[in-house]
Amino acid sequence: MKSVSEYLASLRARRPFPIWFRGERIADPTTHPALARSLATVCKVYELAQDPAWQDLLTTESPLTGGRINFYLSPLLCREHAWQKTRLARSLGQVLGACTHRCTGSEAIAGLFPLTYELEAERGVPVHRRFLDWLADVQREDLTVTAALTDPKGDRRLKPHEQPEPDVYLHIVARREDGIVLRGAKVNQTGVLLAHEMLVLPTATVEEADRACAVACAVPTDAPGLTYVLGRQPHDARCGDPDEDLDSGRRFGDHQALILFEDVFVPWQRVFLAGEWEYSGRLVDYFTAVHRLTAGACKAGGMTLLTGATWLAARYIGVERAGHVREKVAEMEMGAETLYALSLAAGQEGHSHPSGAWIPDALLAHTGKYLATRLPFEAARYAREIATGWGETAPAAADLHHPELGPRIERLLRPAVEGATAEDRLRLVRLIESLTRGSNWSAFALHGGGNPEASRLMALRQMDLEHLSRVAAVACGIEEDEASTLAEVAGRQGRVERRRD
Amino acid sequence: MKSVSEYLASLRARRPFPIWFRGERIADPTTHPALARSLATVCKVYELAQDPAWQDLLTTESPLTGGRINFYLSPLLCREHAWQKTRLARSLGQVLGACTHRCTGSEAIAGLFPLTYELEAERGVPVHRRFLDWLADVQREDLTVTAALTDPKGDRRLKPHEQPEPDVYLHIVARREDGIVLRGAKVNQTGVLLAHEMLVLPTATVEEADRACAVACAVPTDAPGLTYVLGRQPHDARCGDPDEDLDSGRRFGDHQALILFEDVFVPWQRVFLAGEWEYSGRLVDYFTAVHRLTAGACKAGGMTLLTGATWLAARYIGVERAGHVREKVAEMEMGAETLYALSLAAGQEGHSHPSGAWIPDALLAHTGKYLATRLPFEAARYAREIATGWGETAPAAADLHHPELGPRIERLLRPAVEGATAEDRLRLVRLIESLTRGSNWSAFALHGGGNPEASRLMALRQMDLEHLSRVAAVACGIEEDEASTLAEVAGRQGRVERRRD
Amino acid sequence: MKSVSEYLASLRARRPFPIWFRGERIADPTTHPALARSLATVCKVYELAQDPAWQDLLTTESPLTGGRINFYLSPLLCREHAWQKTRLARSLGQVLGACTHRCTGSEAIAGLFPLTYELEAERGVPVHRRFLDWLADVQREDLTVTAALTDPKGDRRLKPHEQPEPDVYLHIVARREDGIVLRGAKVNQTGVLLAHEMLVLPTATVEEADRACAVACAVPTDAPGLTYVLGRQPHDARCGDPDEDLDSGRRFGDHQALILFEDVFVPWQRVFLAGEWEYSGRLVDYFTAVHRLTAGACKAGGMTLLTGATWLAARYIGVERAGHVREKVAEMEMGAETLYALSLAAGQEGHSHPSGAWIPDALLAHTGKYLATRLPFEAARYAREIATGWGETAPAAADLHHPELGPRIERLLRPAVEGATAEDRLRLVRLIESLTRGSNWSAFALHGGGNPEASRLMALRQMDLEHLSRVAAVACGIEEDEASTLAEVAGRQGRVERRRD
Amino acid sequence: MKSVSEYLASLRARRPFPIWFRGERIADPTTHPALARSLATVCKVYELAQDPAWQDLLTTESPLTGGRINFYLSPLLCREHAWQKTRLARSLGQVLGACTHRCTGSEAIAGLFPLTYELEAERGVPVHRRFLDWLADVQREDLTVTAALTDPKGDRRLKPHEQPEPDVYLHIVARREDGIVLRGAKVNQTGVLLAHEMLVLPTATVEEADRACAVACAVPTDAPGLTYVLGRQPHDARCGDPDEDLDSGRRFGDHQALILFEDVFVPWQRVFLAGEWEYSGRLVDYFTAVHRLTAGACKAGGMTLLTGATWLAARYIGVERAGHVREKVAEMEMGAETLYALSLAAGQEGHSHPSGAWIPDALLAHTGKYLATRLPFEAARYAREIATGWGETAPAAADLHHPELGPRIERLLRPAVEGATAEDRLRLVRLIESLTRGSNWSAFALHGGGNPEASRLMALRQMDLEHLSRVAAVACGIEEDEASTLAEVAGRQGRVERRRD
Repeated sequence: MKSVSEYLASLRARRPFPIWFRGERIADPTTHPALARSLATVCKVYELAQDPAWQDLLTTESPLTGGRINFYLSPLLCREHAWQKTRLARSLGQVLGACTHRCTGSEAIAGLFPLTYELEAERGVPVHRRFLDWLADVQREDLTVTAALTDPKGDRRLKPHEQPEPDVYLHIVARREDGIVLRGAKVNQTGVLLAHEMLVLPTATVEEADRACAVACAVPTDAPGLTYVLGRQPHDARCGDPDEDLDSGRRFGDHQALILFEDVFVPWQRVFLAGEWEYSGRLVDYFTAVHRLTAGACKAGGMTLLTGATWLAARYIGVERAGHVREKVAEMEMGAETLYALSLAAGQEGHSHPSGAWIPDALLAHTGKYLATRLPFEAARYAREIATGWGETAPAAADLHHPELGPRIERLLRPAVEGATAEDRLRLVRLIESLTRGSNWSAFALHGGGNPEASRLMALRQMDLEHLSRVAAVACGIEEDEASTLAEVAGRQGRVERRRD
Repeated sequence: MKSVSEYLASLRARRPFPIWFRGERIADPTTHPALARSLATVCKVYELAQDPAWQDLLTTESPLTGGRINFYLSPLLCREHAWQKTRLARSLGQVLGACTHRCTGSEAIAGLFPLTYELEAERGVPVHRRFLDWLADVQREDLTVTAALTDPKGDRRLKPHEQPEPDVYLHIVARREDGIVLRGAKVNQTGVLLAHEMLVLPTATVEEADRACAVACAVPTDAPGLTYVLGRQPHDARCGDPDEDLDSGRRFGDHQALILFEDVFVPWQRVFLAGEWEYSGRLVDYFTAVHRLTAGACKAGGMTLLTGATWLAARYIGVERAGHVREKVAEMEMGAETLYALSLAAGQEGHSHPSGAWIPDALLAHTGKYLATRLPFEAARYAREIATGWGETAPAAADLHHPELGPRIERLLRPAVEGATAEDRLRLVRLIESLTRGSNWSAFALHGGGNPEASRLMALRQMDLEHLSRVAAVACGIEEDEASTLAEVAGRQGRVERRRD
Repeated sequence: MKSVSEYLASLRARRPFPIWFRGERIADPTTHPALARSLATVCKVYELAQDPAWQDLLTTESPLTGGRINFYLSPLLCREHAWQKTRLARSLGQVLGACTHRCTGSEAIAGLFPLTYELEAERGVPVHRRFLDWLADVQREDLTVTAALTDPKGDRRLKPHEQPEPDVYLHIVARREDGIVLRGAKVNQTGVLLAHEMLVLPTATVEEADRACAVACAVPTDAPGLTYVLGRQPHDARCGDPDEDLDSGRRFGDHQALILFEDVFVPWQRVFLAGEWEYSGRLVDYFTAVHRLTAGACKAGGMTLLTGATWLAARYIGVERAGHVREKVAEMEMGAETLYALSLAAGQEGHSHPSGAWIPDALLAHTGKYLATRLPFEAARYAREIATGWGETAPAAADLHHPELGPRIERLLRPAVEGATAEDRLRLVRLIESLTRGSNWSAFALHGGGNPEASRLMALRQMDLEHLSRVAAVACGIEEDEASTLAEVAGRQGRVERRRD
Repeated sequence: MKSVSEYLASLRARRPFPIWFRGERIADPTTHPALARSLATVCKVYELAQDPAWQDLLTTESPLTGGRINFYLSPLLCREHAWQKTRLARSLGQVLGACTHRCTGSEAIAGLFPLTYELEAERGVPVHRRFLDWLADVQREDLTVTAALTDPKGDRRLKPHEQPEPDVYLHIVARREDGIVLRGAKVNQTGVLLAHEMLVLPTATVEEADRACAVACAVPTDAPGLTYVLGRQPHDARCGDPDEDLDSGRRFGDHQALILFEDVFVPWQRVFLAGEWEYSGRLVDYFTAVHRLTAGACKAGGMTLLTGATWLAARYIGVERAGHVREKVAEMEMGAETLYALSLAAGQEGHSHPSGAWIPDALLAHTGKYLATRLPFEAARYAREIATGWGETAPAAADLHHPELGPRIERLLRPAVEGATAEDRLRLVRLIESLTRGSNWSAFALHGGGNPEASRLMALRQMDLEHLSRVAAVACGIEEDEASTLAEVAGRQGRVERRRD
């Protein structure tokens, strides 16, 4: 497995490719200040993967390579893997307060593993073998992989082929003997500039008329024809010197990019779905079940970090004994536990797939993701309340560090905790500001892994409402065939389909 | 294991004891209409324990008897037991829409098992042996056991020994050579009139000055000195004939009683705690961790039943395609899944106790209970909304069945579903009325297993806020000793104490 | 104006008509125990109308009679009237904790006043004169009037004329020279059995194909062809003796009935709309604007009563200083104030109609009604929490009054307030039980004046979203014509239409 | 009244004073880019005060000057003034999406008017005359006035005189013949750098031992001894060129500053409270009643702006017909109406003060402020959801305007609305970003006018819970003296004190 310096060297070994930010080109993503916090995140994950205390969370054995690999490069192969994913997401969420940069890739791997198995078994296309070959290489090289998911979508009343501008959905424009050619774009892609590979997936279930959009493949991030536009975050201009870094609130961060695909060629060896539109829905299902399991747990981690920050903020002004403060802190952490529990349960309630994959329970996973679009926002409100208005209007670190001005402020803003300084307090309120406003953490809570409505609808689709109606009908004496309904109750717990290993 | 008729015979074999209801004595609790729905519940549990489809949920092996026993009579002995408890609670919750009558007893067993082990190991009092003897008998006889928990408490500003009326807390008034004598009362005791045994537990942690209240023991429900006053439920007068039963909304129900202890003698062989006040807090902790794990899952079951009823109600008036109806139904069932997940996760995250007991994670269990005091109420509001105002003002079954009046109503209220009748619709809205208003299901959600504030406070006590503060301090650069904090993160997940097997 | 005894005499002077309850006929609604609490309510309103302290709330001058009349018999004629309605609804809501039985009638009067004016002015039908004649009589006789609103509706996917059973919508079956003949039914009609008159209104906007359903008229409650079926409430069997009355929780109550119209003749002099379907939507709008203004304020009153009961319950067990109790009580009463404010504001923001009517602002009124479907439920949960589990399981008054049993319970359940008795505590928890479960108060909150979805949709229709879009477009520089948008902002406050006097 | 250019000239005529920002001095606050959006706000208010469409909202007659003045310089003198304040706050809130910079000053004027009247009447100190003299000058000069309210507070467990650092509370350090000398600081002061005058008020009720903190006076913003430190906002570095301005999301903005008082002299003619600690609580009450009335209405305006932006965002992607979108937009605007109603009602329910002031109802005002700490956050979540993930990750305006890159992005991100451009869409999502994250609008919602807990506690203090208990006691038959309680109900509506004019 790669050390941090090996990772950096491998990034720098990529062929140069166009990255835009605020109207200018970024020459080297490993040195540009706008990407510094994001780079720190990926490096931290490489570092922790070699930390003995994190071995059980961040590594696993690979049947493909026979060796120990980064856990993010493994499909879920057993129930324990699901639990490991939940705990890892929560733990890293606490440490980073930012996206790990590694989850979408791991979930694309977890989704493509059973999907390619089915496609190969049912259609005879050798995509599972191709996928395993690619995966074994990636595991051996210990690469960072992200997924490329969300298309711009244009007018949402129209299907892809009805759009006036066809490139608002990524699609195959040519099928050649040696591979396929892609055109279109992906938006909101987290972490892609610091990854080696991206796994392209369809943004949603594809119908026959849009079969050109049914595409899944692996693309190196430096492939010709790719152009990246780095998106803005509220705090993104706070970088470049230590004071501004302090005002940005955190050591770690992430980035999102718009990716233009302008005739990108992908050789068949890296293509896992190319027009088989009937498989697109299944792929989305396999992917989202794991993705949303993680999305909930990850936000649990961030909420726990926010709870800790809030508690420290309360101590800094001496209100940690106030009843309402204790209630709010308890609510925040109970919220984190709720997300954690839904993720954990989704993993436990999963089932085995013939490919060897472990498929989490979709209803619990979508429910967790749905709550992850709500609970962090209540927590954010509490955190901001308890940090006081000063948390919203604090001066710059540069003011505190100015020889003439600093000492005059310092004595006014010093915390009520022995030994703590005004700078400590500034650091803390900037962390809270970053989590709740300045960084995209709350954007992840809302949109990462799907927005609230998508999660609610997918959860609804998993519910066997006819079965539930029968339970009610038996309970009140409308339905007289009690026996078969009760037998169902003992087994299915209200799901459309319930496969237990 | 007992058949239903053996259970009924055993109940009738109890020595007569005083039960009051609405100013009169109930001679036989197995025939009085006010207890009929409650009796149906207990009988159903005995019946299902012999149903092949429910074997995995309702039975287990006993190391004490070497045979198969009712699962409610077993302590939790492994992680799988915890999951079984979660699934059983949810499944029965769906079928009954009422209290199982068996949970508090099973949780008292689960709590006394490790507690008596510790007390025996540390103090040499042979209480673990006594408890196992009593338990083996109960398992062999397949008895129904409930717990007697909540004292009247009087003025809550005062401690037990400060109360002007000492009997507002159950206490030992005499220690004799052959046993102890109890005086006081327990309130809100569900199911006790139809149980064989009750396990008396302290209502809360006991301090030294109140050591007379530190008492745990097994008391037959027909012990001399016990008097019961059956509490009222809103629908309790709807019984006595089939129409009134229909108007009560359900086939199953439960009852609560006030129990007067007026010098009740308990022989030492049945006494498990008698003055060892230092152990009272631990007992409460062991008991509530399992009790609240169950309380959450049980309400998940009731919510699922309510979801099914609501969906059927929507179909009955033809609005099941309306967007807001689908959203509300999805919210209801996602609420059920959330409670289920917290219960499941509490079991998974538990730890082994030297006694062989499996102790669920308290933070997750209390969180689940806390949410169980909120989510069912939102679900109830949705159910009542979708059932329409007619659900709140429907006429009596007797009106529908009246030869002159009935047909004139029938054609006005017939559902929009082929084959369904106005009576079906009446049954359905009465089920919803019962769950949301007429029975005590919502009272269980609110108070059963502890009220919201108690749950929130106990959850708070489980959180290691100092650890969380350190995580935040590391994240924003206040704290420089990153390594030890990160190692903690990988293991403890923010809990005061975290023992993993 | 009528005294209570005159009111009772006038009720008894009605010709006998069929009332069904639990499969039997009620001979005299003024003496049947099932209607006793409801009758107490109407009597209380007649009594307070003669109480000097309530003159400003319960009476007004009538331009029709030139004398002082019961305020419920007056249309809203000025902004001050709207405020009086808000304050009256809240005040009576506190006293009664039940429906006043008078609101729907007064709101039908308030709606028919401008509607008949328009119909007469635009079509020349002399309905305004007819309506004023009828109204003057009613004012002089000081009658109780209710509205008959909600049709059974059958399959909600179908329009009235598409229903397999046409009588699920009330409709005109014959137009005769002397009047019209009605067939169908109305459900959920509160108070009708104790009223003299009912004002029939369409249940919703009527389209041309359903013009037979576009009917508004005044019908005496004892008109031939009417049959009533009294609906059940959870506590309805608690009546007949003082102990059961105590267990029912309150002195006041209400009732709902299903009304069968089986060829009911209405002379033209009492007909205000008969087929003019184009006017049905306006009538619904005029009616609901006043009705929902009242619905919000009324629930504010009930919530205030519940807050008082909860505070007393907290004092009874000595927890009134606990932080979380104070927070919850504050939330409850702030909820009441919120409903009150929306009602008050809806009245203030109204406009004058050429008829002389004052039309409240619909957006504020619907918003108030919408919140009235939520806030009382949160308050109910808090009240039940603070009243403790005993509030859900308390024994019967008959137990407390039993000479042998009573004293033994009394000392265990005595409140922590000097001089208060266990019976006081029982009364209090029964009041809370009644408001939250036993009576239909919460059903009014949810459905009275329209369900949540109807309120939300009607509120949405009042919003000028295109105007709001322009405001946003100006704010971010998309739209350059700032001046006209800013002028609109100063006047319209985001409404579709805004007429200020 | 001043034109915009006269205002700018008057600002520039101030004597130079120290302003710090990011470690450097700001020489001229009227030209520094960090204050540009804030300056645009104040200028807009001066401009609209001369706009005929805004005359009724932004101006009034002054009894002091006999002429037309800016409404922000008038105390509330009648019920209509309160309504004007509510409507003005909401209207400007929509236009600006930022603080008006004028409210705290106007509310300090509204609070000092009755307070100085009482102090002069009761103690004979000529502070009312002094205040009116100062006010008449300010009205004639048409100055911008802000209030200086919040002290740093240090360790909140300690009272001011117990603090290790006394300057964490502003206090009088010397009383001289010609005036007083102040030391300490104020935090979070909005708008102060662009105002002519600040009104210093105590941060909370002062006890006798802290009488040095009982100080209210008028201080010119350029008084010697004052130093300002401008606080940071997340988007504050987005300024300096048109593209960055576009990325900041809005034309208008605000600023907050920390103000150091280092021996600031205030002549007696400008001192209105100096040690009379018994009056501090009343002053806080008079001030907060008006301040919170405004705080609620102002947030209603911002929410309405956010609703408009969200609706336009929905149209831009073609989802404006989706049910859940319509529901969420309706919820957002109903939230705005709720805040508006509470503000309006607080004004209507006010009472006259002997000074001629109109005092809003404190319970309604605090309730409005309390809800203003919640409802905008739900609205923000909905807005961000509907704006899609692209709203969180959009590229910079500079990218869109780049000749090579821009056109390639433009066609991918063009809205589904005829004629709208990708730049329009960028402007819109930046507006939403600014309101929800980048600017301090949400900080105002949470902290401006007091935090949630302060609002809840002050609301609780206004409730006459003993009276409410009596209402409940009468309702359930505990209390037999019905008459006096019912008379109270008709008049007091549950308030501690209720004075109606």
